Amino acid sequence: MPPTATRLPLPVAAVSRKSLLKSRYSAVRSFTEKLCSTLETEDYVIQSMPDCSPAKWHLAHTSWFFETFILKKLIPGYVSLHPKYDFLFNSYYNSIGIRHCRPKRGLISRPTVEETYTYRRYIDEHVHAWFDSVSEAEFEMVDSVVELGLHHEQQHQELMVTDIKNAFGSNPLYPVFRHLPHEYGKNAAPLNWIPVEEGVYKFGHYGGGFAFDNEGPRHKQYLRPFGIASRLITNGEYIAFIHDRGYKRPELWLSEGWSTVQTEQWTAPLYWWEQENGHYDEYTLGGLRPVDPAEPVVHVSYFEADAYARWAGCRLLTEFEWEYAAETSPVDGSFAESDRFHPVGSLSVSRTPSQMFGEVWQWTRSQYSPYPGYNPPEGALGEYNGKFMCNQFVLRGGSVATPIDHIRTTYRNFFPPDARWQFSGIRLGKDID
Amino acid sequence: MPPTATRLPLPVAAVSRKSLLKSRYSAVRSFTEKLCSTLETEDYVIQSMPDCSPAKWHLAHTSWFFETFILKKLIPGYVSLHPKYDFLFNSYYNSIGIRHCRPKRGLISRPTVEETYTYRRYIDEHVHAWFDSVSEAEFEMVDSVVELGLHHEQQHQELMVTDIKNAFGSNPLYPVFRHLPHEYGKNAAPLNWIPVEEGVYKFGHYGGGFAFDNEGPRHKQYLRPFGIASRLITNGEYIAFIHDRGYKRPELWLSEGWSTVQTEQWTAPLYWWEQENGHYDEYTLGGLRPVDPAEPVVHVSYFEADAYARWAGCRLLTEFEWEYAAETSPVDGSFAESDRFHPVGSLSVSRTPSQMFGEVWQWTRSQYSPYPGYNPPEGALGEYNGKFMCNQFVLRGGSVATPIDHIRTTYRNFFPPDARWQFSGIRLGKDID
Amino acid sequence: MPPTATRLPLPVAAVSRKSLLKSRYSAVRSFTEKLCSTLETEDYVIQSMPDCSPAKWHLAHTSWFFETFILKKLIPGYVSLHPKYDFLFNSYYNSIGIRHCRPKRGLISRPTVEETYTYRRYIDEHVHAWFDSVSEAEFEMVDSVVELGLHHEQQHQELMVTDIKNAFGSNPLYPVFRHLPHEYGKNAAPLNWIPVEEGVYKFGHYGGGFAFDNEGPRHKQYLRPFGIASRLITNGEYIAFIHDRGYKRPELWLSEGWSTVQTEQWTAPLYWWEQENGHYDEYTLGGLRPVDPAEPVVHVSYFEADAYARWAGCRLLTEFEWEYAAETSPVDGSFAESDRFHPVGSLSVSRTPSQMFGEVWQWTRSQYSPYPGYNPPEGALGEYNGKFMCNQFVLRGGSVATPIDHIRTTYRNFFPPDARWQFSGIRLGKDID
Amino acid sequence: MPPTATRLPLPVAAVSRKSLLKSRYSAVRSFTEKLCSTLETEDYVIQSMPDCSPAKWHLAHTSWFFETFILKKLIPGYVSLHPKYDFLFNSYYNSIGIRHCRPKRGLISRPTVEETYTYRRYIDEHVHAWFDSVSEAEFEMVDSVVELGLHHEQQHQELMVTDIKNAFGSNPLYPVFRHLPHEYGKNAAPLNWIPVEEGVYKFGHYGGGFAFDNEGPRHKQYLRPFGIASRLITNGEYIAFIHDRGYKRPELWLSEGWSTVQTEQWTAPLYWWEQENGHYDEYTLGGLRPVDPAEPVVHVSYFEADAYARWAGCRLLTEFEWEYAAETSPVDGSFAESDRFHPVGSLSVSRTPSQMFGEVWQWTRSQYSPYPGYNPPEGALGEYNGKFMCNQFVLRGGSVATPIDHIRTTYRNFFPPDARWQFSGIRLGKDID
Repeated sequence: MPPTATRLPLPVAAVSRKSLLKSRYSAVRSFTEKLCSTLETEDYVIQSMPDCSPAKWHLAHTSWFFETFILKKLIPGYVSLHPKYDFLFNSYYNSIGIRHCRPKRGLISRPTVEETYTYRRYIDEHVHAWFDSVSEAEFEMVDSVVELGLHHEQQHQELMVTDIKNAFGSNPLYPVFRHLPHEYGKNAAPLNWIPVEEGVYKFGHYGGGFAFDNEGPRHKQYLRPFGIASRLITNGEYIAFIHDRGYKRPELWLSEGWSTVQTEQWTAPLYWWEQENGHYDEYTLGGLRPVDPAEPVVHVSYFEADAYARWAGCRLLTEFEWEYAAETSPVDGSFAESDRFHPVGSLSVSRTPSQMFGEVWQWTRSQYSPYPGYNPPEGALGEYNGKFMCNQFVLRGGSVATPIDHIRTTYRNFFPPDARWQFSGIRLGKDID
Repeated sequence: MPPTATRLPLPVAAVSRKSLLKSRYSAVRSFTEKLCSTLETEDYVIQSMPDCSPAKWHLAHTSWFFETFILKKLIPGYVSLHPKYDFLFNSYYNSIGIRHCRPKRGLISRPTVEETYTYRRYIDEHVHAWFDSVSEAEFEMVDSVVELGLHHEQQHQELMVTDIKNAFGSNPLYPVFRHLPHEYGKNAAPLNWIPVEEGVYKFGHYGGGFAFDNEGPRHKQYLRPFGIASRLITNGEYIAFIHDRGYKRPELWLSEGWSTVQTEQWTAPLYWWEQENGHYDEYTLGGLRPVDPAEPVVHVSYFEADAYARWAGCRLLTEFEWEYAAETSPVDGSFAESDRFHPVGSLSVSRTPSQMFGEVWQWTRSQYSPYPGYNPPEGALGEYNGKFMCNQFVLRGGSVATPIDHIRTTYRNFFPPDARWQFSGIRLGKDID
Repeated sequence: MPPTATRLPLPVAAVSRKSLLKSRYSAVRSFTEKLCSTLETEDYVIQSMPDCSPAKWHLAHTSWFFETFILKKLIPGYVSLHPKYDFLFNSYYNSIGIRHCRPKRGLISRPTVEETYTYRRYIDEHVHAWFDSVSEAEFEMVDSVVELGLHHEQQHQELMVTDIKNAFGSNPLYPVFRHLPHEYGKNAAPLNWIPVEEGVYKFGHYGGGFAFDNEGPRHKQYLRPFGIASRLITNGEYIAFIHDRGYKRPELWLSEGWSTVQTEQWTAPLYWWEQENGHYDEYTLGGLRPVDPAEPVVHVSYFEADAYARWAGCRLLTEFEWEYAAETSPVDGSFAESDRFHPVGSLSVSRTPSQMFGEVWQWTRSQYSPYPGYNPPEGALGEYNGKFMCNQFVLRGGSVATPIDHIRTTYRNFFPPDARWQFSGIRLGKDID
Repeated sequence: MPPTATRLPLPVAAVSRKSLLKSRYSAVRSFTEKLCSTLETEDYVIQSMPDCSPAKWHLAHTSWFFETFILKKLIPGYVSLHPKYDFLFNSYYNSIGIRHCRPKRGLISRPTVEETYTYRRYIDEHVHAWFDSVSEAEFEMVDSVVELGLHHEQQHQELMVTDIKNAFGSNPLYPVFRHLPHEYGKNAAPLNWIPVEEGVYKFGHYGGGFAFDNEGPRHKQYLRPFGIASRLITNGEYIAFIHDRGYKRPELWLSEGWSTVQTEQWTAPLYWWEQENGHYDEYTLGGLRPVDPAEPVVHVSYFEADAYARWAGCRLLTEFEWEYAAETSPVDGSFAESDRFHPVGSLSVSRTPSQMFGEVWQWTRSQYSPYPGYNPPEGALGEYNGKFMCNQFVLRGGSVATPIDHIRTTYRNFFPPDARWQFSGIRLGKDID
């Protein structure tokens, strides 16, 4: 998932790019550890399904990135802390070396959690020493690698949270990740449709900060007129879909979706459990609690989002429609820094699209494809971006597990259509005349 | 795959639409049986892999279509030949009834081939009687269903050929489907690049004949300048890719493609077998023979087409680029009626794109998605079109197994990226300034 | 399954062993074809599950045996009918050559059925010519191979019947293999217990005719006193087990059996379908008909036989207990030659064990192991017998699909504990003081 | 695996049975924890394959046994430490309650290791209090349950060691469980054959101490004359088998064994890795080190033991042959209490069978079946013993991971023929005249 950064122009600023990235390095690296503050040693070790990785591995792999692409390349005589860590903490960079098979990451008890933190500190010390010794000119040769490493780590911050949620949500003891008090009884705002006029618009990143290579080149698309829903779909609305036999009617589903529903025996979003009285409980990172109808529905797959939209007589937006509508929205919401870790409802009427950022990733109907004119960068850092442009759908907007300074209007996330363990939800669109 | 027809205006013609479709009905139905002329009884029964169906089933299922959507609906008191045929010959029309599981079609020896032909004749007699008795006015209420049924049958004609090829190609005796004399030693024409200017162009079907619903609505797209290869990629060029370790280098492949290469142990196109001297033999519908370097490569997956393009420093075309380039090409080639059943090489230099139709389906880089404004029709005939818009790539142009009057410039075929048993090949494109 | 024959002393007889085996060759070979008399061409081709083989393959493979072990070895200059038949019709004789993967036998439409019969005739002509030309002395060097080939073919006769039943029983049209009129309303005889005294007895074959190597050496075993049921368990008794929640109670099952029940969703014997009124229909080789409570239950696995016995407060017999009890029973019953192909009930009271032969194979609690002192013969014919002595249980007595002159009191059949497509049923035993 | 204890007569002794079992309770419970002395917290959590369980789970499950069958049954008002522990620590006792699926035990990070030890202490305190308050008379009603619980815990001690070895042996860092110095260069004693005369002998447990129910009833068997090897097969001998293409020759293997060799790509015992120079390294609980030719081969499956025996022109012993030969051997060897955790070679010539106990479990050719007259006890403690009498082979003698006072001459261990993670090795037998 972590695509390659494009080399971007320096911001015109009093502070140097080096000191900026140095302080950002400290902030990002410590935020990773802050996320783990409530974890017991045992929690770091387990991998609850093949798509997930143990927290321990996330801690190490993000460090391995800086070791491999900065320390080993730029520091003469640099010696690794352990000769096998390279093998253990590599992920899918096929051109770097043989990797330890992903589904087996949870079978490795050593290095211990403490040894893993020691590895992090070892990397941090060497990176800081490098920051202190490297000249501004030399630094500019590789600053984009550092920046990429930090965004890469932020991506793993989000995965760490979703992977822990998956592990805790599979445990009958339902451990608490954060204390999350919740008040029931509020009502979601009514859903309005906000019209967008047809036109030829420009999309994709245009400089002025970091972006992944898949966000460019900036290019034109023609959009037909459409409407965008003023807010996310709520649990209450989704329960109406369930009660209307949404999971029982093949005509609402994509063919592959319907077969997934049957194979996986889906009857509700992930982490929902129907109670004897017909109501649903939901595992949140604050523990198990009744589903609140006013909150946005979360942990649905593309298949479910698409089926819901069809049931509602609407459709999902394309990623371009979403991006155009989002351009005037402020990037705010319940991001990871807020320590909320569960999306909150939209309670007040809005004439502009609300909840565009930082609550739940919003599935679009766009399959993940290269933008016109896209060329992947050469070499290991770039090898994997084009690689995933198959059987993935684009999601937009970030979630409660995304760090706020990691997201952008042009940010393209992508997952297979059956993925549910990310904080993914539903934003509707429709054709208008 | 068979999407729903849109209701189209009648052609202005001396002959009535009814008599036109009646004579077309006879032609299409008998061509299906002509395709089977060399089959032994045993050949009709087997299903060599889950994606394929026995010829017997194709014969019956295409008849079932007319029984279900014409005879049962329009003829009062119509009685089926056998009460269980409906169950056995239904395919994936979920709203019609429970279907016999696709991977098990090859486990059913009864009805026999003769009984299946009896069923076809039974349907044909009733359809002909209906043609004779129905008024022009009544006919116009359902003419699009008849037309759809004929295109549906043509799709199954193609599948019948590819499924037989798969069955014969898995048999160590390599049975001959058609006698196909072949002369070696010719050279393929050099590959030229034909430039196309940028612009906003219109795409999709605009009336004047039959089209599937997924070919509309007609709509605008902006195209950047690009080049299109003057001909298909040849076996000789593809062998160069193999010899350059094309199947061994992960950096050339999509991530899912690379894992398929390893799981399936792909080392060459389907139906190729490396000989002890390093040369390749290929099963064609004329039997096993050495691969001819001048012929177009065929039976490659999207993954292979995409990897080849990356290796060649090019890319595949989008379906819109292909469609624009094809608009001035005549719809000719080695279609099914030619009885060639294997694509032929392009031998003379061309300044316009050649081999656009009727040799091999050309993989595009476009994932199969709805056109803007697309709405699937209501009910059983339309239920399945949107259904496949996930994890499929669009192919264009038709192949040696496609009936010539079935194809159009706007025709969108689609298969998963690992499918190889269709006659699918490679057309390159590239960005130009 | 076909184990190796031990070389046995010639019977003292007026006719020579050669003429005896020659006439037996004709009889066995033609009985194979007689079994197929009602098959349509299509029926010969299909393979309804990996454990089964197409009838066409059985016809060819049994011929291949004589070609490989007689014609190719003994006739100088013998030329095969087709060079690839050896590859296609070999089974699991690993030392003979590479074999065509068993689960794919049903994917091969050629050679056709007619070509397969031509192959049989080709073999038969050569074998007959060899019979006519070989001297008695030369013949005696290989007579055991001929005899083995005939018993091997008889084993495939039985498999051909059970494999056809499996194919027909999976077809919603339920084809009829033989017209089998049936009269309902009779009552099964009451089940008596026949006591057997303790003692040291001898078991295994002791000469005087053909036997497979796994039936020897003859050896002693000590038996404790036990009781044997006077007849087989009936459908009626088995339905009582089902109604008493037999398939729902884990405590009645072996651990692997219980997990099979759940994975395979077993709720009744193979080929039984519960009707809306709670009664069961059963596919027999005479077609689908209501289960008759007076008939022996058939098509149960070892797991089901064992669970039934536990439910009934009894146990299955060991193979030695069965053999001792069978020694005084005549070898009669509904064998294949009777053309009944479905077991018949025991209607009259008996003070000796009835139904010991020729209705259903009777699962014993004995896991298939070598007799003390057993040594497999050398070379290809013997390679596979010891091979199956793992995870198989012994069955005794033959069934409606067994040729009568193929069975003996000492005959040991064996199948994995989850196999149900053979005609296998239940004989109870119990400890007595 | 833990079968049910039979109620046995009290030993005539000065100490009461209660005080004896009380002190034994303390000893067994603390030995479990002593085994874990070198584990890091992380090591307790992982489950390296479905057959294994995390050490944490073993610690809890053995405590759950006493809670369920003693505390909950006998102490009025007993309150569990946590209501869900019953669900989490139950294993396969189907009649007790729904259990947490075995392959998922490694996905549960909570309760933590510390909480698990707290649970053990909670149980221990209550059991000790119960010991102190219960009268001798009351105690005698349930003493066999206590005794069974202790043997059950000893079985899990062994599994805990083998499961940790599996986890560590899968870790590229090869963690050390115990410091195990080793001296190379010694030679194994020559292998002699010790003859045993034919006869009718008695087998099975006959009182005078604890035994599992599957060790009885004591009964007679007739044995033919046979020879038993004076020692275990060594690594050196096994390497000769490998070098003679033992893993490449299908004729040496059971059919299921050969297919396992191919599927699992076995080329040597578990935990062996071939080095570039053709020599083998082996993971021991002391870390990775070169294979010592003088040590007994260990971590082979039944399939490998059987193939080795066939290659050597011998066979494995039956469990009765083994038991008869073992009757005069002292129960000594490298048991778990010795802290060796790897089998040692037999260096001196012996005229009686050596290494019968406490080095490696010795595969017998006997499939695991009930002894004549065996009846499983009623209820939950007994439900599972008959349950495993299918597709398992009997092993005898105990290993370096077995507690010494857990083993007996009549002890029957059993595992499926492909199991390799136990300390299992090879003892040869052969027929003699």
